[in-house]
Amino acid sequence: MRGIDKSDVPAATVPRLALYLRKLRELRARGVDRVSSKELAEMIGLNAAQIRKDFSYFGEFGTRGVGYEVPVLLEEITRCLGLDHTWSVVIVGAGLLGTALARYRGFGEQGFRLVGMFDSSATVIGARFGPGDDDRVRSVHELDEFCQREKVDIAMVTVPAGEAESTVQRLAAAGVKAILNFAPIKVTAPEGVLVRDVDLSSELMSLSFYLDKEHD
Amino acid sequence: MRGIDKSDVPAATVPRLALYLRKLRELRARGVDRVSSKELAEMIGLNAAQIRKDFSYFGEFGTRGVGYEVPVLLEEITRCLGLDHTWSVVIVGAGLLGTALARYRGFGEQGFRLVGMFDSSATVIGARFGPGDDDRVRSVHELDEFCQREKVDIAMVTVPAGEAESTVQRLAAAGVKAILNFAPIKVTAPEGVLVRDVDLSSELMSLSFYLDKEHD
Repeated sequence: MRGIDKSDVPAATVPRLALYLRKLRELRARGVDRVSSKELAEMIGLNAAQIRKDFSYFGEFGTRGVGYEVPVLLEEITRCLGLDHTWSVVIVGAGLLGTALARYRGFGEQGFRLVGMFDSSATVIGARFGPGDDDRVRSVHELDEFCQREKVDIAMVTVPAGEAESTVQRLAAAGVKAILNFAPIKVTAPEGVLVRDVDLSSELMSLSFYLDKEHD
Repeated sequence: MRGIDKSDVPAATVPRLALYLRKLRELRARGVDRVSSKELAEMIGLNAAQIRKDFSYFGEFGTRGVGYEVPVLLEEITRCLGLDHTWSVVIVGAGLLGTALARYRGFGEQGFRLVGMFDSSATVIGARFGPGDDDRVRSVHELDEFCQREKVDIAMVTVPAGEAESTVQRLAAAGVKAILNFAPIKVTAPEGVLVRDVDLSSELMSLSFYLDKEHD
């Protein structure tokens, strides 16, 4: 591993890395070898100074008039984001949102491998969620044992709000280290476990805040 | 309207307002009239000083030992978030994610009213997405005229990445002022239109960044 210390990378930079990665992959696919911060800024809608600052964490200083080497940047960002591994993912909650997530192709392309899906309802246990013979929804009773055995890294939680807290605690006890919580409730992150909330109501409320309602 | 100037409220505060709102509603439902910043901090998992600072934008200074009045705070946060209105919402893209969003009960409870759903695929046009007789997926050809006629405020875009940009431009031209974009691509926000990206791949990448993979 090169001399990148992840702890140097500010939290606000991380979501931008995902944006850079997507654009750089697109450029590579089009055969583009070099790109300037100014060009990237225009393509992504950020400012060039911000991009140069973000890339400086990788020790990458673009040459004026020549820019950055696309393959080198791609490799460094991929490694920094931990996307040079494959991550095992489970989904807990096989409702509509869980099922939508299971079929979302973007995940597989990024190195996230969906290995299991769980639900408490007898009507969905056994239903197919993927192309494989084993891709069937399992009972939540099997969750703990499965996560330990399969060394699951990441869980996406799409259970009702009232079940989110206990689900997160079970996943943590079974060794899952990162959780994406879609339940509309703030759950307590167990020691040593990362929890990110994706709260769709809250996103809508933010839009509502900024909307300048004429009939105020 | 009271003397709250929304432009005083920092962007970072807005997502926390949604959290406060949820907890305060819960407290009100349980008949709790007063709450201290310390109690709220414990319930939500934030620190008390942050909460006091956020509430100070409403001119609310809790009394030491007595705390804040729950109904007053609730009313002020509701108004500040613009949730004292009803917002008309459409979903463009009636795939799995769009359908999951349409059935998500949380939206209706917050004053977001789903008035239409659109898709380009003949196989889903006409399909039911809600309980009403009119709750049927329409052709995207009707999108512009519908948004103008119904004065749609907010759109959720769940179309494929390649169609996101043109969809956003059409919505903007039809008068939609705020867009929640779920397509895995950064779209250009048209002048005067708010766009928030909900990028699930990017959320997973952030988790991956922070995971300390032992087999590094």
